[in-house]
Amino acid sequence: MEMDQALLTQIDAYIERNIDRYIAQLARLCGQPSISAQNLGIAECAQLVATMLQEHGYAAEVMPSDGHPVVYGAGTGQRDKTLLFYLHYDVQPPEPLELWESPPFELTRRGEKLFARGVSDDKGHIITRLAALDAVRHVLGELPCNVKFVIEGEEEIGSPSMDAFVEKHQAKLAGDACIWEFGGVDSEGAPSQSLGMRGIFYVELSVETASRDVHSGLGGSIFPNAAWRLVWALNSLKDAAENILIPGFYDEVVPPSARDLAMLAQLPDESQFLLEMYNLPGFLKGLTGGLAWQREAVFVPTCTICGLNAGYQGQGSKTVQPARASAKVDFRLVPEQRPADILQKLRAHLDAQGFADVAITVYCGEHPAKVDPDDPFVQMATAVAADVYGREMVVSPMIGGSGPLYPFVKTLGVPVVAAGCGYPDGRVHAPNENIRVPDFINGIRHTARIVEAFGRM
Amino acid sequence: MEMDQALLTQIDAYIERNIDRYIAQLARLCGQPSISAQNLGIAECAQLVATMLQEHGYAAEVMPSDGHPVVYGAGTGQRDKTLLFYLHYDVQPPEPLELWESPPFELTRRGEKLFARGVSDDKGHIITRLAALDAVRHVLGELPCNVKFVIEGEEEIGSPSMDAFVEKHQAKLAGDACIWEFGGVDSEGAPSQSLGMRGIFYVELSVETASRDVHSGLGGSIFPNAAWRLVWALNSLKDAAENILIPGFYDEVVPPSARDLAMLAQLPDESQFLLEMYNLPGFLKGLTGGLAWQREAVFVPTCTICGLNAGYQGQGSKTVQPARASAKVDFRLVPEQRPADILQKLRAHLDAQGFADVAITVYCGEHPAKVDPDDPFVQMATAVAADVYGREMVVSPMIGGSGPLYPFVKTLGVPVVAAGCGYPDGRVHAPNENIRVPDFINGIRHTARIVEAFGRM
Repeated sequence: MEMDQALLTQIDAYIERNIDRYIAQLARLCGQPSISAQNLGIAECAQLVATMLQEHGYAAEVMPSDGHPVVYGAGTGQRDKTLLFYLHYDVQPPEPLELWESPPFELTRRGEKLFARGVSDDKGHIITRLAALDAVRHVLGELPCNVKFVIEGEEEIGSPSMDAFVEKHQAKLAGDACIWEFGGVDSEGAPSQSLGMRGIFYVELSVETASRDVHSGLGGSIFPNAAWRLVWALNSLKDAAENILIPGFYDEVVPPSARDLAMLAQLPDESQFLLEMYNLPGFLKGLTGGLAWQREAVFVPTCTICGLNAGYQGQGSKTVQPARASAKVDFRLVPEQRPADILQKLRAHLDAQGFADVAITVYCGEHPAKVDPDDPFVQMATAVAADVYGREMVVSPMIGGSGPLYPFVKTLGVPVVAAGCGYPDGRVHAPNENIRVPDFINGIRHTARIVEAFGRM
Repeated sequence: MEMDQALLTQIDAYIERNIDRYIAQLARLCGQPSISAQNLGIAECAQLVATMLQEHGYAAEVMPSDGHPVVYGAGTGQRDKTLLFYLHYDVQPPEPLELWESPPFELTRRGEKLFARGVSDDKGHIITRLAALDAVRHVLGELPCNVKFVIEGEEEIGSPSMDAFVEKHQAKLAGDACIWEFGGVDSEGAPSQSLGMRGIFYVELSVETASRDVHSGLGGSIFPNAAWRLVWALNSLKDAAENILIPGFYDEVVPPSARDLAMLAQLPDESQFLLEMYNLPGFLKGLTGGLAWQREAVFVPTCTICGLNAGYQGQGSKTVQPARASAKVDFRLVPEQRPADILQKLRAHLDAQGFADVAITVYCGEHPAKVDPDDPFVQMATAVAADVYGREMVVSPMIGGSGPLYPFVKTLGVPVVAAGCGYPDGRVHAPNENIRVPDFINGIRHTARIVEAFGRM
C-alpha cells in the first residue's frame, strides 16, 4: 500500500509538537488507580476514560457488563468502514510496594522513561490511540473511517465478562478490523506483530483442615495440616520435569502448523537477553534458545503457581500449624484447549488423587485464539511499521500472554493487529512499570499510519 | 508429705482476697507487647518484669544473653534450699489480628475468662508465681526457701540463647528444684503434670529463582518458578502418609520405655474433645484415640509446615510468576534426636534431591529432655495438687511441645515440675488466647503448696 510521505511528515510533526500534552494526559490517567483484582478505583477510572474520550471528540458511554463496566466510544469518519480499538483501563495490583522507586500511581519521568502502574499496560496505549487519531484528524481534516473504542475494566483479571459482552452487543460493536491493546518493540528495537494469544484458566486452590490454627507442638503430630495438603495436591499437578500430570490435560492440544513454525524460526532469539535481564541460572528443560525454546514459550500449555499463602509469614518463627492454605494457579492454554474442559479434568484429578478436600475457585477462563497472517489488514498494519521503525516488523504466530482475542476473532470476525509503546524491560505486572518516550512517540506514529491506510483500503 | 490444713486455708484466703490485685498486675504485664519473633517491645517488657519483681520484694536484674535479655530475680528464705522458677516474658505474634474479639494487648474480661496475647503463655504464669510466693510469705512471715527467677525473652522463638546462658551462669542459677513455665488442667478438669518435652528444630526454607517476578504469560513457560521449586522440595520431605523422607531422620529415635507407655496408657483420652474443639474430620494415620494415638502425639517426631509465602496472595488473580518463595518448617524431635544432626541430614537430602538452590535458615534448635518420674520433688509437687483440684494429677511422660528443659535438667541437674493456670481451650499461639479466673486461682494455690512443702523437704 502506497504512502503519501508529505502527509505522514505532517502527522509526525503534529505528534512531536504535542507530545508533552499527551504525556500530561497519560499522567492524568495513571494518577487514577484502577485495580480490577481489588475493585479499587474502577468506577472512577471508567468515568475518567469516558470523559477523556469525550474531550477528544467522541461519543462515549460507560456500559454495564456482568463485571466491571466497559467504556464504549464512537467517532464517525469519511468512509463507512469501522476500525475497532480494544483496550483496557484496569491495571495489575502494584504490590510489592517497597520495590517501587516512585509512587506507582504518580507518573514519574526519569530521563527518557515514564514510570507508573499501567503506564504501559494499558493506559499508555489508550493515550497512544487518542493521540494517533488526533494527529490523523488534524492533518486530514476529519477521520478517514469510523472508529469504535471497547475499553474494558477486567483485562487484568482475565476478562471474565468479555465473551458475553461482545455476544450481547455484537451489532453495536460490529467493525471491519481491530487494533489490539498492545504493541511495541523487541529487545533489538524491531517492532513486534503478534497473531495469536494463548488462553488462560486461573484458579485458586484452597484447603481448610480445621476450624482454627493450632500450636504445632500439638497439631503437628495428629492433626491434618492445610499447608501440607496443599503442597501434596500441587505436587500432584506437575512434576519437576515440567510435565503436567492432570489426565487428559494435553488431549486437545493442536501442534503449531508448518507456517507457525516458519514464523517462529524467523523470530530473533531473545534467550540471552532474558537470562541477563532476570538474572536466571538457565531455562526450564535445559532449553538454551532457538526454535525449540521459541516453541516452548508459546505453543506449550503451562501450569504456574502465582502465589502461595498459609500460616505464619512474618519475621522469625511462629510455632503454629495452619488450618487454611491456598495457592493461585495460572494455566496458559494453547489451541484448542478450553477452560471449561480443564476445570473438569482438574477436579477429577484432585478427587482421584485423594484431594477432594482441595476446593477450586475459578477466577477466569479465556480461550486461545489465532489471527490469519494472510489477512490484508494484517499485511498492511505490518507493512506500514517499517516507515516508523526503519525496519521490518517481527511477526509472531502466537504470544505467551492471554487476552479476550477469541470474542473479537470469532464473534465479531475481525482481523486483529498489534501496535504500541511497549518494550521488553517495561516491567508490566511488576514494580517500576515503565515506557520510553521514543517508544511512546513511535507507537502513536505507527497507530496513525494504520488508521490513515485503513481509510484508503 | 503431710500438709497443715489451717496454714493452707490461710494461704488460700490470702489468694482469694487479693485476686483482683493480681488480675490488675496481669493486665499491666499483658499491656506491654513483647513479641520476640519481631523484636517488638522486648526491652520494655524485660524492664517491666524486673520492676515488678522488685515491687514484690526481690532483687532483680536484666541480664544480657546472646539474644534477648533474661530477667533474673532472687529472694532469700528460711532454709538454704533454692527453688528455681523458669518463665518467659515474650509472647507469640498476635496475627491474624482480625480474628481477635478484643485487642490482643489489652487484657479483657468476659465472664470468667481473661483474654490477651500472653495471658496464658506465659504472663499468667509469671503472676501466678509472684502471687503464690506473696501468699506463702504473708502466712509464714517469710519465704520457706530461697527462690530464683529465670525469665527469658526468647521462649517463643525456641530459646536459642538458653543453653549458653545457663552454661555461663551455672553457679548463679544453681538450685535444688524447678517449677516450669506452665501447668494447668486437662479437658476434664484434672491437673496435668508433664515430665518431658520434645525438642524442636525450626527452619525457613527459601528459594530465589530470578532477580524479580515476571509476567506468568512469559515466565510460566520457560523460567524456573520459585514457588514450584519450593513445593517440590517440601514434597520431598514428607509423604502424604506422614513418613518423613529425610534419610537417617529416625536413626536416633529411642522408643518410649515400658514405664513411659504405662503412664501414657493412664492418660485420659482427649481425642473426641480435640476433634470437636478444632472441628477436625479425623486424625492423621487413621488414629482414633487410645494408646497408639497418645504415643503418636508425643513420642513420634514431626515435620510441620507452619507457613508458606510466595507471589501474589491478595484478592482475585494476579498473573505473576514469583521469583522468591519460602516456607517455615518446624520439626519436633524426640529423645535422642539432635537439632545439629537433623540440619546436616536435611541439607544432604535437599542436595541429593536436586534442591541445592533451596536455602536453609535455622531459627532455633532445642534438644528433647525427660525428667525422672521417681524424683521426690516430682512426687511431692504431683501429690499436693490433689488438695487444690480435688483429684489426682494426670502425669504425662512427655508432651508434644518444646522448651529449654535440657539445660535445666542436664546442666543445672534439677528436677522440673509443671503447675499453672492453663486449660485446653486457652488458644495459646492463636487468636483469643485466654485463661479462666478459677484456673488462675488454682494455679496460684498449687504453686503455693509446692513452695510451702518444698521448704519442709
